[in-house]
Amino acid sequence: MADPLRSALFNDLYELTMAQAYAAEGMEAPAVFELFFREMPAQRNYFVAAGLDDVLTCLEQLRFVEDDLEYLRRDHQFSRAFLDRLRGLRFTGDVYAMPEGTPAFPNEPLVQVVAPMIEAQIVETLVLNQVHFQTVAATKAARVVHAAAGRAVVDFGSRRAHGTDAALKVARTSYLAGAAGTSLVLAGKLYGIPVFGTLAHSYVQAHDDEWAAFEVFARQYPNSTLLVDTYETLQGVRKVIELSRRLGDRFRVHAVRLDSGDIGALAKQARQMLDAAGLSQVQIFVSSEMDEYRIAELLAGGAPIDGFGVGTRMAVADDVPHIDMAYKLVAYAGAGRMKLSSHKVSYPGRKQVFRVVEQGRVVRDVIGQHDEHLAGEPLLQPVMRDGVRQPAGRVSLEDAREHASREMARLPDAMRGLDRVDPPYRVEISAGLRSDADNLRRALERSQLGSA
Amino acid sequence: MADPLRSALFNDLYELTMAQAYAAEGMEAPAVFELFFREMPAQRNYFVAAGLDDVLTCLEQLRFVEDDLEYLRRDHQFSRAFLDRLRGLRFTGDVYAMPEGTPAFPNEPLVQVVAPMIEAQIVETLVLNQVHFQTVAATKAARVVHAAAGRAVVDFGSRRAHGTDAALKVARTSYLAGAAGTSLVLAGKLYGIPVFGTLAHSYVQAHDDEWAAFEVFARQYPNSTLLVDTYETLQGVRKVIELSRRLGDRFRVHAVRLDSGDIGALAKQARQMLDAAGLSQVQIFVSSEMDEYRIAELLAGGAPIDGFGVGTRMAVADDVPHIDMAYKLVAYAGAGRMKLSSHKVSYPGRKQVFRVVEQGRVVRDVIGQHDEHLAGEPLLQPVMRDGVRQPAGRVSLEDAREHASREMARLPDAMRGLDRVDPPYRVEISAGLRSDADNLRRALERSQLGSA
Repeated sequence: MADPLRSALFNDLYELTMAQAYAAEGMEAPAVFELFFREMPAQRNYFVAAGLDDVLTCLEQLRFVEDDLEYLRRDHQFSRAFLDRLRGLRFTGDVYAMPEGTPAFPNEPLVQVVAPMIEAQIVETLVLNQVHFQTVAATKAARVVHAAAGRAVVDFGSRRAHGTDAALKVARTSYLAGAAGTSLVLAGKLYGIPVFGTLAHSYVQAHDDEWAAFEVFARQYPNSTLLVDTYETLQGVRKVIELSRRLGDRFRVHAVRLDSGDIGALAKQARQMLDAAGLSQVQIFVSSEMDEYRIAELLAGGAPIDGFGVGTRMAVADDVPHIDMAYKLVAYAGAGRMKLSSHKVSYPGRKQVFRVVEQGRVVRDVIGQHDEHLAGEPLLQPVMRDGVRQPAGRVSLEDAREHASREMARLPDAMRGLDRVDPPYRVEISAGLRSDADNLRRALERSQLGSA
Repeated sequence: MADPLRSALFNDLYELTMAQAYAAEGMEAPAVFELFFREMPAQRNYFVAAGLDDVLTCLEQLRFVEDDLEYLRRDHQFSRAFLDRLRGLRFTGDVYAMPEGTPAFPNEPLVQVVAPMIEAQIVETLVLNQVHFQTVAATKAARVVHAAAGRAVVDFGSRRAHGTDAALKVARTSYLAGAAGTSLVLAGKLYGIPVFGTLAHSYVQAHDDEWAAFEVFARQYPNSTLLVDTYETLQGVRKVIELSRRLGDRFRVHAVRLDSGDIGALAKQARQMLDAAGLSQVQIFVSSEMDEYRIAELLAGGAPIDGFGVGTRMAVADDVPHIDMAYKLVAYAGAGRMKLSSHKVSYPGRKQVFRVVEQGRVVRDVIGQHDEHLAGEPLLQPVMRDGVRQPAGRVSLEDAREHASREMARLPDAMRGLDRVDPPYRVEISAGLRSDADNLRRALERSQLGSA
């Protein structure tokens, strides 16, 4: 089977039924859709934009294959003419976006799609699915990396991530956000990122003796990390020390891994024992229910930990597993469009985000009309034109990782921390954009609310 | 690119390094791994086992392709002999499992893999990734379907599920758990499940007039569901009523969809307006931040709702997005294996789960040795033998859905509800299994804890 991410049927049915209606009505003018989120959850100060690279790859490769068309013909009410239209459909539009790794705030477009209505509409689910999750995951990872304060963070989440695509994207976005690498081999192959492994309890258990397991594993992999808690953690550490005595100069074990119990206390005891045995070069690597809060707590307690394997909680972003991200029509046929709603603010027309920097630190963003000239760095870059990636859309993961690191360093210090900053980061709406919204709201109230 | 789910590299690096060590040591005896979870979270009374079908498909198709081997050769320290071994590797083992849709409880094996050590070890990540998430997702969906009390539930979660694989698996498992279908077209194609669609706000906005949008859409799709809240919900309902007057006999609109505001109050007002206009056949379908709690609250308040579009919260299972599911070695070379740990109970050896049923209702489970003869229905079925699916492993999604429905109906009534039952469902450990565990624990304490 092909990768679901590359299927043109990865969409919600209404996108295709609306597309057929648009085709029937001759509504083929350019549309502008923007992807943004509305609110900052209480547990976050920023989000890290991610997922763009997959979106652009999918747009470049968008094709309905015969198999797809046959399914649509057989199971759904689409006309032959529309299916022929889908057969020839390619994405021919433009995309503007924040580079991956850019901190993003409420109401700021992360991605803008400017394309003939049908093309822009049928990619809704795909764009949202990838940018929503990768942004959620990159942000969680950025917090974990910050909490680890320079110590290595390795993604261990593949087994509990929500499916295979999520596992890959957690590996990718955690590396983007500064993690050292992942345990997931396929992510190493696909993204060229470092892959790390230790050993499992099963390996120790399968041997009749823990000592024998350590000895044979360290002989095969001299620089390995030995998991010491299968039976009793400090006994496991003693066996590693004994191994160093027996192997002498050939002992090159890189680290011991603690995976259960009172990790903070055990790390201190293990460190003392290793140091007393002259093994100060052997690092302490820990795992088990790690996240940014637990890591901060361990380090605040003085635990002498050199690296963290971070699994489940980072992989599912368990404190903020979703945000209210939407892909909304803001212009059609050259005219601004918006919903009317008492509690959801929205602004019509294509936009630009201007980031104002003072003395090397970002201080506020201003969301304006796309062609306004406002102070600050414009964040939205042309990443695709006429369906073809532009230089700004061809960024390696290594370069995106460096960009993320630089941009995170420009945030106010407190914002990078785990606690909510109050007041939150300032995001202003330009006078021009507010005026557009007010005018359109009044026009819609006149035309739509009295018309039935 | 191929589907990541079908890649033999969807594993954690330690599985391959351990496998190479096992090969070097000649540790090729059969191993038994069991997949289970340890604790019932406070928000759940049961879990619905799911994910087996994908696991079996992956095991049948397990292959290291040249591209994988080349990556492993280039980037990692594997010997030529081991890579040759991987080239020829197929899964030749046996699998026992609970059928998909079976309610499962703590410490019960959902899946058992009995295979030569290397084969059983390298599928760890894949088995966990699929069964963990699909079980979490099926369980959330079962609760949502229960809360909807016979009304239609449609999965709308594809855009906020964690990646493409999760979106597909949410569609699949929600159907397994009793949902009517999904909005995700690709899930309809792959799983043969019903696909539903309405229309988006963007469609209404793209037209200069909401009324015109309804009229043209209903003409193209007579049985459609019209989204009425783009500008003001009850005005939208009035436009649908006006449409019925104009179309007369040709009016066949199926439902109105409410997606914002005070859904309970709006549903009542919309129902009154539709009924007063003689449109009692037009259903009310609602969406926006739905989950089992919200649905129960709306129905308890008497909201006249016929169907629910349930998105984000079901798709990410946001109140329980992960459980402590593990894949643990329980036997190697014919001998039971276990970890020692002060707070994590585990039992050695291959097991069977016996479900005791009285007067048509399940009353308790007993976990015993696999060859014990205990009262109750044995839940673990032979689903794969020598790498080949057995009849019990070839179950259609429709049949699994019926099985789930029957098994849910046998649970005590209170357990199907949203509140925690106290005491929880009884899961006993047989005397034989307890004795095995005690004996092995004592032996390990003697042999492992004094040996360094």
